[in-house]
Amino acid sequence: MRADARDNRARIMTAADDVFGRSPGASTDDVAKLAGVGIATVFRHFPTKTELLEAVLTLRLERLRDRARELAGSDDPGAAFYAFFTQVVSESTSKLAIAEALTAAGAAAGAEARAAGDGMREAFDALLVTAQKHGAVRSDAEFPEVYALLIGASRGATAAKLTPETRDRMLALVYDGLKPRG
Amino acid sequence: MRADARDNRARIMTAADDVFGRSPGASTDDVAKLAGVGIATVFRHFPTKTELLEAVLTLRLERLRDRARELAGSDDPGAAFYAFFTQVVSESTSKLAIAEALTAAGAAAGAEARAAGDGMREAFDALLVTAQKHGAVRSDAEFPEVYALLIGASRGATAAKLTPETRDRMLALVYDGLKPRG
Repeated sequence: MRADARDNRARIMTAADDVFGRSPGASTDDVAKLAGVGIATVFRHFPTKTELLEAVLTLRLERLRDRARELAGSDDPGAAFYAFFTQVVSESTSKLAIAEALTAAGAAAGAEARAAGDGMREAFDALLVTAQKHGAVRSDAEFPEVYALLIGASRGATAAKLTPETRDRMLALVYDGLKPRG
Repeated sequence: MRADARDNRARIMTAADDVFGRSPGASTDDVAKLAGVGIATVFRHFPTKTELLEAVLTLRLERLRDRARELAGSDDPGAAFYAFFTQVVSESTSKLAIAEALTAAGAAAGAEARAAGDGMREAFDALLVTAQKHGAVRSDAEFPEVYALLIGASRGATAAKLTPETRDRMLALVYDGLKPRG
């Protein structure tokens, strides 16, 4: 791909992330306008809206996976685990909007998005295990229920349209449940 | 309404609760078959699928509201609060399926379902306040974040398709976060 084509593709994806993250029912035309390219350019890179949505969702999940891997090297594994949990929940409203737009377009997440999701889950599991070894998360909590809490807190924040303050107070309750009892 | 018409209506609603709770995409015909009535009888009581779904969702919410009010009289307010929380999360998969079917039918929850939902929230708030007075829930937790946790745990259980065992382990973490710190 030539450099200007790569630039266009990146601009389209950034615009799509923003547009669909705010409103799942937005059109490809809205994306083209925000990206400052013609609609034909969008369709050259992404022949269907589904392909564009899938690419944006995959990018989101890959970024979260990369963030979790980066945090795995932290010298405060407890802070790293809770920071990642908070980031996933904070980003959930716009991420769920993109997933919802994909469902509305009649598609399930494809192989790429699923692989990125799997990578994110694995990296989150590694953060959990290290935080437990350092006594920052109770050792009897296992991955399935901690992951269910992550999904639940994300969906709860979105469904109940929480203010950031209430979201943080909800997370404080969740984190107190995850911390070892003194 | 005559007694046999009332019986038919109740049978249709019980069947619809079961059918749509298991599969949001089910048809009114499936409901008629399970209820053991003709499709014309279903349409006489509920001219559209939306009206039927709305009636079923309202009934669900009214039953939860009544259950919360009943538990409010318990002499163990802590146990009553956590029992109600657990019941809402346990029923959430089928309740969310009914709400989803309503959305798929192009309708938002109408005035009756919203009033029943408001009644349920008020009764849950009363359970929370009493449990806090009795030291079973930390006194610094406020209704918005506790309600967000209830919604989140419900949606997390449904989205992650948890087994009952994992769901109970997730709830144990949530409840430890809600209990006062010794």
